[in-house]
Amino acid sequence: MSPDIETLIQKISRLPGLGPRSARRIVVHLIKNREQSMEPLLSSMGDVHANVKVCPVCSNIDAFADVCSICADKKRRRDVVCVVESVSDLWAIERTSCFGGQYHVLKGLLSSLDGQGPEFLRLDKLQKRCHEDNVSEIIIALSATVEGQTTDHYIKKFFQEKNIKITSLAHGIPIGGELDYLDDGTLFTAFSARG
Amino acid sequence: MSPDIETLIQKISRLPGLGPRSARRIVVHLIKNREQSMEPLLSSMGDVHANVKVCPVCSNIDAFADVCSICADKKRRRDVVCVVESVSDLWAIERTSCFGGQYHVLKGLLSSLDGQGPEFLRLDKLQKRCHEDNVSEIIIALSATVEGQTTDHYIKKFFQEKNIKITSLAHGIPIGGELDYLDDGTLFTAFSARG
Repeated sequence: MSPDIETLIQKISRLPGLGPRSARRIVVHLIKNREQSMEPLLSSMGDVHANVKVCPVCSNIDAFADVCSICADKKRRRDVVCVVESVSDLWAIERTSCFGGQYHVLKGLLSSLDGQGPEFLRLDKLQKRCHEDNVSEIIIALSATVEGQTTDHYIKKFFQEKNIKITSLAHGIPIGGELDYLDDGTLFTAFSARG
Repeated sequence: MSPDIETLIQKISRLPGLGPRSARRIVVHLIKNREQSMEPLLSSMGDVHANVKVCPVCSNIDAFADVCSICADKKRRRDVVCVVESVSDLWAIERTSCFGGQYHVLKGLLSSLDGQGPEFLRLDKLQKRCHEDNVSEIIIALSATVEGQTTDHYIKKFFQEKNIKITSLAHGIPIGGELDYLDDGTLFTAFSARG
């Protein structure tokens, strides 16, 4: 095998969710479909590399001059900020179009196992923003995992006594979910939070 | 989401084994790890795009001038040709280093469902090669699926009465396999072919 191919397989196998076997399959596909697959992918990745940056305000990733398109959008409310773990979560919320405010993307959740402390949350930056934009509500939209809930709790504590409403996403039965198949924790939460 | 990012996600989600969700994860990873991941991947894919071609003799993919490194290797036997379905199968055989001959990579297996007829096997090319290189044995190394075995049978028929020994890989119990967990077909084959 040519060293060029070997290097490419290695690079692709290190991407999240992929391994050596799937990387080999992808590389064979790319080489066999040079015009339809490899060339468009190369040019598209080049575009992203040239244009896409991390927004200095909310840490969203986007192609922009000063701030990302969400921060720059005059039609969006500036007094509600939604805290998410990652850009994929931001995209997921944007797909539902249920939220018209601003975002604050964390660098990661609090996790002693991974050595991620409060500096990953960049709360001082969020606090400054709350002050400047007169933010009245912070919506914490984190996963219902141990790390997510610990971080949720930490953020609530941090903004206590700062006269800002802090809310979290509701927990309960997912839409389309059958009672019979739910885990005990979800069922318990759904019962306690009934309304 | 910026259209650049959207296009890249779309291109990546069309690669084999990936979908929109895994493509989104990969793109976020690439953008967040610009220097460690996106740049090496871009340059490595550029190298492959510039250097790697399909070998005109055996259809292997490699970086070469006239013919691929396997066809050009003077130390390899020229009188044994191994027929494989794809370059990944060639790589798998090369990893075992059990074979020191030449290869013939098919464009695909015979499959009426996918509309793949005998032209996908390029047997006329293989026959010409057999004549020129005085090939004494063709080893058919195809998957033990319906398409693989149909193609195996077709190739054997094609080279009948041409004074070339045609062999196929052995079928039986895989190494490390437990009898109890084997399917009936394999166990039956292993019994019939005992020796």
